[in-house]
Amino acid sequence: MKKLRCALIGATGLAGQQFVAALKDHPWFELTGLAASPRSAGKTYRDALRAPNGMLGWFLTEPLPEALANLVVVAGDQLDPTKYDVIFSAVEADVARELEPRYAKTLPVISAASAFRYDDDVPLIIPPVNASHSELIRKQQQQRGWKGFIAPMPNCTTTGLAVTLAPLQAAFGVKAVMMTSLQAVSGAGRSPGVIALDIIDNVIPHISKEEHKVEVETKKILGAVGVPDAVKVSCTCTRVAVLEGHTEAAYVSLGRKASPEDVIRVMQEWKGDPQTRTLPSAPPRWLEVTLDPFRPQPRLDRDVSGGMATSVGRVREDGVLENGIKYVLVSHNTKMGAARGAVLAAELLKVQGFLAESSRA
Amino acid sequence: MKKLRCALIGATGLAGQQFVAALKDHPWFELTGLAASPRSAGKTYRDALRAPNGMLGWFLTEPLPEALANLVVVAGDQLDPTKYDVIFSAVEADVARELEPRYAKTLPVISAASAFRYDDDVPLIIPPVNASHSELIRKQQQQRGWKGFIAPMPNCTTTGLAVTLAPLQAAFGVKAVMMTSLQAVSGAGRSPGVIALDIIDNVIPHISKEEHKVEVETKKILGAVGVPDAVKVSCTCTRVAVLEGHTEAAYVSLGRKASPEDVIRVMQEWKGDPQTRTLPSAPPRWLEVTLDPFRPQPRLDRDVSGGMATSVGRVREDGVLENGIKYVLVSHNTKMGAARGAVLAAELLKVQGFLAESSRA
Amino acid sequence: MKKLRCALIGATGLAGQQFVAALKDHPWFELTGLAASPRSAGKTYRDALRAPNGMLGWFLTEPLPEALANLVVVAGDQLDPTKYDVIFSAVEADVARELEPRYAKTLPVISAASAFRYDDDVPLIIPPVNASHSELIRKQQQQRGWKGFIAPMPNCTTTGLAVTLAPLQAAFGVKAVMMTSLQAVSGAGRSPGVIALDIIDNVIPHISKEEHKVEVETKKILGAVGVPDAVKVSCTCTRVAVLEGHTEAAYVSLGRKASPEDVIRVMQEWKGDPQTRTLPSAPPRWLEVTLDPFRPQPRLDRDVSGGMATSVGRVREDGVLENGIKYVLVSHNTKMGAARGAVLAAELLKVQGFLAESSRA
Amino acid sequence: MKKLRCALIGATGLAGQQFVAALKDHPWFELTGLAASPRSAGKTYRDALRAPNGMLGWFLTEPLPEALANLVVVAGDQLDPTKYDVIFSAVEADVARELEPRYAKTLPVISAASAFRYDDDVPLIIPPVNASHSELIRKQQQQRGWKGFIAPMPNCTTTGLAVTLAPLQAAFGVKAVMMTSLQAVSGAGRSPGVIALDIIDNVIPHISKEEHKVEVETKKILGAVGVPDAVKVSCTCTRVAVLEGHTEAAYVSLGRKASPEDVIRVMQEWKGDPQTRTLPSAPPRWLEVTLDPFRPQPRLDRDVSGGMATSVGRVREDGVLENGIKYVLVSHNTKMGAARGAVLAAELLKVQGFLAESSRA
Repeated sequence: MKKLRCALIGATGLAGQQFVAALKDHPWFELTGLAASPRSAGKTYRDALRAPNGMLGWFLTEPLPEALANLVVVAGDQLDPTKYDVIFSAVEADVARELEPRYAKTLPVISAASAFRYDDDVPLIIPPVNASHSELIRKQQQQRGWKGFIAPMPNCTTTGLAVTLAPLQAAFGVKAVMMTSLQAVSGAGRSPGVIALDIIDNVIPHISKEEHKVEVETKKILGAVGVPDAVKVSCTCTRVAVLEGHTEAAYVSLGRKASPEDVIRVMQEWKGDPQTRTLPSAPPRWLEVTLDPFRPQPRLDRDVSGGMATSVGRVREDGVLENGIKYVLVSHNTKMGAARGAVLAAELLKVQGFLAESSRA
Repeated sequence: MKKLRCALIGATGLAGQQFVAALKDHPWFELTGLAASPRSAGKTYRDALRAPNGMLGWFLTEPLPEALANLVVVAGDQLDPTKYDVIFSAVEADVARELEPRYAKTLPVISAASAFRYDDDVPLIIPPVNASHSELIRKQQQQRGWKGFIAPMPNCTTTGLAVTLAPLQAAFGVKAVMMTSLQAVSGAGRSPGVIALDIIDNVIPHISKEEHKVEVETKKILGAVGVPDAVKVSCTCTRVAVLEGHTEAAYVSLGRKASPEDVIRVMQEWKGDPQTRTLPSAPPRWLEVTLDPFRPQPRLDRDVSGGMATSVGRVREDGVLENGIKYVLVSHNTKMGAARGAVLAAELLKVQGFLAESSRA
Repeated sequence: MKKLRCALIGATGLAGQQFVAALKDHPWFELTGLAASPRSAGKTYRDALRAPNGMLGWFLTEPLPEALANLVVVAGDQLDPTKYDVIFSAVEADVARELEPRYAKTLPVISAASAFRYDDDVPLIIPPVNASHSELIRKQQQQRGWKGFIAPMPNCTTTGLAVTLAPLQAAFGVKAVMMTSLQAVSGAGRSPGVIALDIIDNVIPHISKEEHKVEVETKKILGAVGVPDAVKVSCTCTRVAVLEGHTEAAYVSLGRKASPEDVIRVMQEWKGDPQTRTLPSAPPRWLEVTLDPFRPQPRLDRDVSGGMATSVGRVREDGVLENGIKYVLVSHNTKMGAARGAVLAAELLKVQGFLAESSRA
Repeated sequence: MKKLRCALIGATGLAGQQFVAALKDHPWFELTGLAASPRSAGKTYRDALRAPNGMLGWFLTEPLPEALANLVVVAGDQLDPTKYDVIFSAVEADVARELEPRYAKTLPVISAASAFRYDDDVPLIIPPVNASHSELIRKQQQQRGWKGFIAPMPNCTTTGLAVTLAPLQAAFGVKAVMMTSLQAVSGAGRSPGVIALDIIDNVIPHISKEEHKVEVETKKILGAVGVPDAVKVSCTCTRVAVLEGHTEAAYVSLGRKASPEDVIRVMQEWKGDPQTRTLPSAPPRWLEVTLDPFRPQPRLDRDVSGGMATSVGRVREDGVLENGIKYVLVSHNTKMGAARGAVLAAELLKVQGFLAESSRA
């Protein structure tokens, strides 16, 4: 099978670098185009990553892939759409608002940006949870007169929560969710990101707009196609001195009484949408449930199954909510919650027939 | 006024050192006796603090008071009760269970240990919240045939929560509380304490017995004398890489509807029990409410008013609980939540007539 | 005595905030003017500090002084020089290069910026070490035709090192110094500062230009007026996950043999330049020498004497260098090494007659 | 080829767990026996790892190998020597002093403990550096009347330094070394290890006995068989808030003048002892030299080549030492510097004929 040719916009930022890592040696996709801000245009990727002080701004522990290091970066709006089959987007929301529709006229755009997440004709897909939401793409194409489309990923904090709610919703119903997050600094990217001076020996009890995103997105993801779910969601999102991996303390009001053992069983047995089971990026299990009361921990559990599994522990009864259950989850915010999650969604969309090789000259 | 003569059991641990600092230059109390494990007995306090490798095991930024450095430490059970008017206790629960009753036969014992917190005839006093609970002491003395008594402090995590709930209870009623804590490592003391290897770039989602303590103690503190309140409490207690200051994300179901502005006003105006307003350790305000969405932060807010004020921020409506309100608080776990809180309680008990100069030879 | 009226350029940055704190309630100086970038001009200081997301960008644990919070900030080049007696400067080097000479035409400019440090007619003063270097100011005024002058502070890493070398130079001579620093993140300021993602669980083994600064500045400071010392200096400067306080491991080749005990005695007895002993910001001792092998530690020792004393420990023989001695020092990089050190220098210059009340209308 | 049967003493500690990981799926060795303190004896390895509070005390991110989890642990002195071909030792020095000679009577003991490092008839082997030192084993067997032997590994801080000095010694000669280390907390193990309260926002400027170990061991390793080298070594060893990976700032006086470019070339081309090149644990290159001025960093570089390569950067001229060169290195203290380094040494000893299958019943 010929691989689909992919281009990445926002290639130099932290999110972009994570896409580069997520697409490395992918069996279905090949990254052949890189775009970034005009400042980077015309430089090789390696040079575009280099800071004025000489530091190579590549922040992953995996080395920078040699094949891409020498690729010349173009400005974000200068990609030739006829050369690619898919666009991945790792730009900020304001840039996304301008660039993504431009490419969506002819190409699928799989995006980590929040710009279009809340539009009625835009699906918010977590493959194991709501694979069927992709049918909104047809509506989007019709309404907007596009051949391509925009498929954004949810906020990374939403992803971890929604993945754990999905099996509970299916088995027991979910009426309300309260969640306090302890989020990793990588979620803020690098520019400006979280300053060390703010987070060493500290907690920051607020992340701008994050709580609203989680509340709105969770309803959209758990709902039927185009119809937000009635679940009530209330959160407090905080930042802690952790590099990667969001920890979330969730309290869930179920539709009917269930014991912690019931919840554990349902989570352990959950297989997600059947279409996702054989996707290249799918982990053996979407949820890893532990009985060790001191787990999950972000440092020890974030990388389980390449950062694609969500770890759940401390499943207990909650004495306040009706049919209340509480638990703690750890989700890898820059893998399942961002670039690798977007690649997983691309895999699903390919299986569903939404991605195809463009006619090539 | 002659100062009351105090002895401290558990003087060498982290909690003990905090008592030493809290009692330094106190207008009413003078620390004249130090007790610790048999291993320390017979050494000067300075030598008892010294580790085998030569390190001076004094962990506060305030210097070790010279007056105490040369005092000879005795074994925990070897204090001569006729030489003291009050015993402060900073020992572990199991040691407390044995030593505290021994001294309570003749002397008031103000303790940071959990050993007797849950006994029916033992008050759990946070001075601004439930000063009247001290009347349980009479019952305790009668039932146990003691001239003295044991007055333990609540768990440090309970203290921050209960102080913020008290004005809400008075103004609106409190039906239920859900709380997720992000606790500082100092709460675990030093031996073994929290290992750096466990907490750098990490969160530990469990602290043994902590959630149960908060649930039981909150009811006892907010209740009438001897009658636990009916409030429902559900928590998740986690450990983060913060040195001092517990952060807590609270969600409260009030007895009647109140807006965030109402809650802020009630908290700002709250003065606590009238008996506490002029105590030497009382802060100008028990609650410091901030409108800055990024506060309170443990590093910036823990030391407000010498660590005796609790900082509250992010007061918002909660969409899940009935009459739901949510907020974030920061409380200094080793000051208001431990040694300085115990000294504050001793001050209250003195004003209430429970502490007096023993007859001296 | 009437206080000298001071203005501060670069008031909103981290260094500027430290000047605000250092000048609060100062017996000789009163901060009455604040300048910052054009973006801040016309706003109150409180509003100028506020970030777009609503966060109050005041990063010290001391609260923002109310008296200044409502002062209106002007653009950096818009201060009326006739209204002030002294200018303090906390701007970046490139801004300093433009603004400082403008004000120095008529006013003394005491600066934390590096722009003019290396000019031949500019002194680099650490008051206890080289108070007499201020005589270069006369030369500077003559050569440049200024009534005022520029007096920059050394790099914060140089300050800690030079203060410990001064008594050794006086007692034994100093031939060579090798130094590895472990520097705090506050040294990099806030914009961009050190990103949490770069320093949690990490060391960054390089700080741009820092090693060169320490090497050149140490020679200038330890030299005679206008004549750099012949001492050889070699450093490696690294960044570690510490908020405040630079730790430096120094290895010194003395002019003649001296034992660790000799070195300790000389450091303990050192009083610095006689002119500095009664300055308001001078600590009781410039050097605090400890015998505890586990000290100095930045967190425990940085704030000794208000951050104005340098702590020294681990004084040992070095077996490689001729007459080699090695030790570890901790210096508060944003207090003695920056704003408070600049205020100390201003105090010295006032005592020396270089600062005076301008004629006022 | 039949694998050699190995037992591990000290299996439950952090060092022991690292041996378990290092031996997992090893082509030549099979771990079939586990020993620990009497407290663990009789329990499965999984249960022996479990703390009283229920936490599974397995601290690596790799999961606990299932095959070993159910193996029953014996007391340290209760291994049946006839059942094993090699003993790996991860016990503390005092336990090593007692147990290791007992097993060495009949079996090779490869140890991470310091107990026998400084004995004249005991080699201190870093395979690429001094493979020939193994010949001391013959002398050891003769003198002590043992069939087996003890081969201890150097201190982890020594290892990183010695590996970088070896090619310099060969090419230019090495006269003196000054080194300041910034060491990871994992070096202290877990019991007690480094307390979070001591290292968050801090540096500890001393590690007991560490500097002496580095000074003595470096001479022994760089010397001829049984004859310490004359190189002078002076160090300052500090602890920083890093989980894994020691960073060392080295200053080296070479036997003859060499430029940084010469040093870089010699390091890059260095292949180590020819016997080591094909060992299973040998990395492609022993030294990875970087030109990026901001590298090596422990978090980004510690795991290069499975933690077996040492990263070197910032190679510069040093202006103080004769023929002075300075650089920064990062070495993985618990992989190349401990368990995996010991397994590498075992591989070398096997190739050299010092390890053999015992006669089996």
